[in-house]
Amino acid sequence: MGKYAIGVDYGTLSVRSLLVDIETGKEETFSIYEYPHGVMEQRIPTGTTLPVGWALQEPQDYMEGLISTIRNVVAEKNILPEEIIGIGLDFTSSTVIPVKNDMTPLCHLPKFQDEPHAYVKLWKHHGAEEEAKMIDKIARERGEEWLSIYGGKVSSEWFIPKILETLRHAPEVYEEADRFMEAGDWMIWQMTGEESRSACCAGYKAYYHHENGYPSKEFFHAIDPRMENIVETKLNAPVKAIGEKAGNLTEAMAEKLGLLPGIPVGTCIIDAHSSLPGCGIASSGEMMIIIGTSSVHMMLGEKEVRIPGFCGTVKDGIMPGFFGYEAGQSCVGDHFAWFVEHCVPENYEQEARMRGINIHQLLTDRLEGYSAGSSGLLALDWFNGVRTPLMDFDLNGMILGLNLSTKPEEIYLALIEATAYGTRMIIESFEEAGLPVHSIVLSGGIPIKNEMVVQVYADVCGRNIKVVDSSQSSALGAAILGAAAASEEITGFKDANDAAKHLGKVKEKIWEPNPKNTEAYHLLYQEYKKLHQYFGCGSNDVMKKLNELRRTCKE
Amino acid sequence: MGKYAIGVDYGTLSVRSLLVDIETGKEETFSIYEYPHGVMEQRIPTGTTLPVGWALQEPQDYMEGLISTIRNVVAEKNILPEEIIGIGLDFTSSTVIPVKNDMTPLCHLPKFQDEPHAYVKLWKHHGAEEEAKMIDKIARERGEEWLSIYGGKVSSEWFIPKILETLRHAPEVYEEADRFMEAGDWMIWQMTGEESRSACCAGYKAYYHHENGYPSKEFFHAIDPRMENIVETKLNAPVKAIGEKAGNLTEAMAEKLGLLPGIPVGTCIIDAHSSLPGCGIASSGEMMIIIGTSSVHMMLGEKEVRIPGFCGTVKDGIMPGFFGYEAGQSCVGDHFAWFVEHCVPENYEQEARMRGINIHQLLTDRLEGYSAGSSGLLALDWFNGVRTPLMDFDLNGMILGLNLSTKPEEIYLALIEATAYGTRMIIESFEEAGLPVHSIVLSGGIPIKNEMVVQVYADVCGRNIKVVDSSQSSALGAAILGAAAASEEITGFKDANDAAKHLGKVKEKIWEPNPKNTEAYHLLYQEYKKLHQYFGCGSNDVMKKLNELRRTCKE
Repeated sequence: MGKYAIGVDYGTLSVRSLLVDIETGKEETFSIYEYPHGVMEQRIPTGTTLPVGWALQEPQDYMEGLISTIRNVVAEKNILPEEIIGIGLDFTSSTVIPVKNDMTPLCHLPKFQDEPHAYVKLWKHHGAEEEAKMIDKIARERGEEWLSIYGGKVSSEWFIPKILETLRHAPEVYEEADRFMEAGDWMIWQMTGEESRSACCAGYKAYYHHENGYPSKEFFHAIDPRMENIVETKLNAPVKAIGEKAGNLTEAMAEKLGLLPGIPVGTCIIDAHSSLPGCGIASSGEMMIIIGTSSVHMMLGEKEVRIPGFCGTVKDGIMPGFFGYEAGQSCVGDHFAWFVEHCVPENYEQEARMRGINIHQLLTDRLEGYSAGSSGLLALDWFNGVRTPLMDFDLNGMILGLNLSTKPEEIYLALIEATAYGTRMIIESFEEAGLPVHSIVLSGGIPIKNEMVVQVYADVCGRNIKVVDSSQSSALGAAILGAAAASEEITGFKDANDAAKHLGKVKEKIWEPNPKNTEAYHLLYQEYKKLHQYFGCGSNDVMKKLNELRRTCKE
Repeated sequence: MGKYAIGVDYGTLSVRSLLVDIETGKEETFSIYEYPHGVMEQRIPTGTTLPVGWALQEPQDYMEGLISTIRNVVAEKNILPEEIIGIGLDFTSSTVIPVKNDMTPLCHLPKFQDEPHAYVKLWKHHGAEEEAKMIDKIARERGEEWLSIYGGKVSSEWFIPKILETLRHAPEVYEEADRFMEAGDWMIWQMTGEESRSACCAGYKAYYHHENGYPSKEFFHAIDPRMENIVETKLNAPVKAIGEKAGNLTEAMAEKLGLLPGIPVGTCIIDAHSSLPGCGIASSGEMMIIIGTSSVHMMLGEKEVRIPGFCGTVKDGIMPGFFGYEAGQSCVGDHFAWFVEHCVPENYEQEARMRGINIHQLLTDRLEGYSAGSSGLLALDWFNGVRTPLMDFDLNGMILGLNLSTKPEEIYLALIEATAYGTRMIIESFEEAGLPVHSIVLSGGIPIKNEMVVQVYADVCGRNIKVVDSSQSSALGAAILGAAAASEEITGFKDANDAAKHLGKVKEKIWEPNPKNTEAYHLLYQEYKKLHQYFGCGSNDVMKKLNELRRTCKE
């Protein structure tokens, strides 16, 4: 008889279940279910249209996806129900659902079917910009201590702004909601019958601190008097650590899934954060970077420190017993894509077609044998503003050192290098705060597809780099947390950290810094930092002025 | 019987003769002769190969071109020989030829046929880099006063470095040469039998000053003792003002050309400078800018002042009675071309083909209705270094303000705007030196082809702009100087200035600044200046460091 864990990875457009053999670590099979309602940006099912920037979901999709994908993987591998020893979940966040005490989503109540605020507000729902600004202002004025954990900025993508938006625009929904929940926590409740809150979602998205709890009544009162008691009336539930069991599968849910009741279910983790155990990281000093359209940097630390411009520091928020640190760069793959779409000449496109490769590959091929500094270029990777460390989205990109012999592939490389300098700056922020970074594991689509990017990061950061060996590291991380929810007698794993060490996966190859390039990049990085300081920290506000003028022109 | 002047325009690849009716101002016809030897960059006619950076010409091409083109225009219009009242010449410079006292070029002596240094060194011959550096160093050390006239930099394209190169690498050629001449002056000598030196060539390219003459014996001795007496032995000849008659056509030459002997021939002017009379400029306060691959800014002034980073200030050097001022930008059309070649995506190329327009036109069309500042971009036009005012070629271009919605045409516009800011900076240099700039006339290929460029310049500079109404303004200028060489009784023109007023041509349309754009550009220009100061004047030497690193990589 085998032992399998299931990781359920709730993404933006679909849910994926991954079946992992916890004895061999093998990813046996997976199944994907695309949400029939997808992301509702134009209208809700009744036909009511939505303003620009909205992004809703239909919670029934989550339920159906769970049942469909779990049944599929179990059936496909002929797994016996008793061979499933645990289930873990990761979910997008902050994805907020208002529900009744019996778990019913308000959007499923006939009276709210036509009310957009009663649906799930997906992480990228941007309807609460105004509320975010308001909260930001009030938190600043009140000197709210928790603000410093989140880089001193409130994002409209987070939990409280979305709820405030509901209160202000649909007070009857706010009133009727017994609970406001992260959709991930709601799914856990559905599966286990026990309500809890993920330390990850609460800590990274709802200003929850392991010692101080949520923000104070006074703060909520200041935002809106009607919100004063929100914590005890609509949020109150045990906050559970990542790696902790959230509960056991109920009979009702077990029947739906074709599994046995009582299977341990792990506390839900945010999808990005789930990659960290997926990369096998279970100790401090090893940074994971997810390089996608933007980048996220996560690391475990043994102590709590505040670092400027970080996106959150949460005890038990990524792995148990550690402070989970999150930082980020707001534009990485996005500006490589911008470049490829807007700045690559026709003859390059023709050559790529002729050779049957994509344009990223062509540019990379043309850079074969480059050495650091040979282009004479230096860029600022600020095409979408700066997250860590400046938390300033009123900044823009720059390319410097252009001359008449500059080639497109050199600009492409400069953009890649710029993101690596940005990462090095984040590494230095960690280290200056007393959290040394010994090595790096990259995950996300870009490092898997483009080895040159990995090498540039190794050269710029002067550190060995490993790359995750799974194309579904979030789902793998969720499966690991599923295994961790089961008892040590069954799994042999002491805890989630131990499970991650055994089941997380990185490729064998280690990308080592090339000493010559590292030396040149060290010089270039000093110049990058100087420009960062000059354009980002007030010496020359030209970017802000240009943005201001641009906005004026559009009025 | 009509009255016609001929302007002979010696360019880099060909010579053009233009026949102008001096009573109507009409450009009657022109003829072009491409030099059979072109620019010899690989080898000389004997097969001997040339080092990289060399650019030689065969002087016989100049003679044959003169005869061919003049005969063509006269024949085509059935002009009687007596209807030609004057001939003017413009020539590239510094284009240097070593000759015997009887005008024979040394390369035509059998013993030097295989000696590259005996040929004409074209203006863009770059074999004398080392000599230029040496002269620069010595002039600096000696505190040579003339250096300040030329922006404090010695260019390898100028007269003395090319001669020093010959002396050091082919001393027998130096020894055998009775005269080193500008090729333009040599042609005048061929045509008139009288040797003279153009104030324009001598002043702009050979450190000649109307009061101080050439640099001192001591200076030449310091460069190389063998050069001590070069001025009296190999250069000495009357320096003639632009607008002055150089001599009259000899019988021998008249026969070759099919014209009458005795026709007045004007002093030769440099080809770029010849555009100024072609634009009808004959007074101070009106700036001419030739916008081509690079830009040249010229203006007449009534007094002599030194302005940092200028390329020369020469009495009678452009028009008689004035100090001719020259400044320049080293990269204008060149980086528009760079952009179009390297940074325009395939779908733009496809659209341009479909619409049957070129890509510059497509980009311009896409900018229809733009307003200043709407792109949020700001560039430094330093893709080929900076001529005026910094005279620093170790600087590079920059584009700032990029974001994910930046479009190719916006970058294109930013590059155009950057060159306009550079021009505004030059205008301010003039004005700070007490030479007000009231209006601007643009010539060169770009303003004729692209009206948007003209409007951007008007908006950025906040001044009315006119555009030359001739596609061959240098040849027109030469014809004007040809007319000016004839007597007032024949032409009715008091002098060259008067001739320019009557025969120079600008289009009727005046491009006026758009107040809204001018206001926005005023703000943007302040930001440009700040970046100019920061990156160009020592606050941040990042560009130099990048160049240094780039050079190291290439070693």
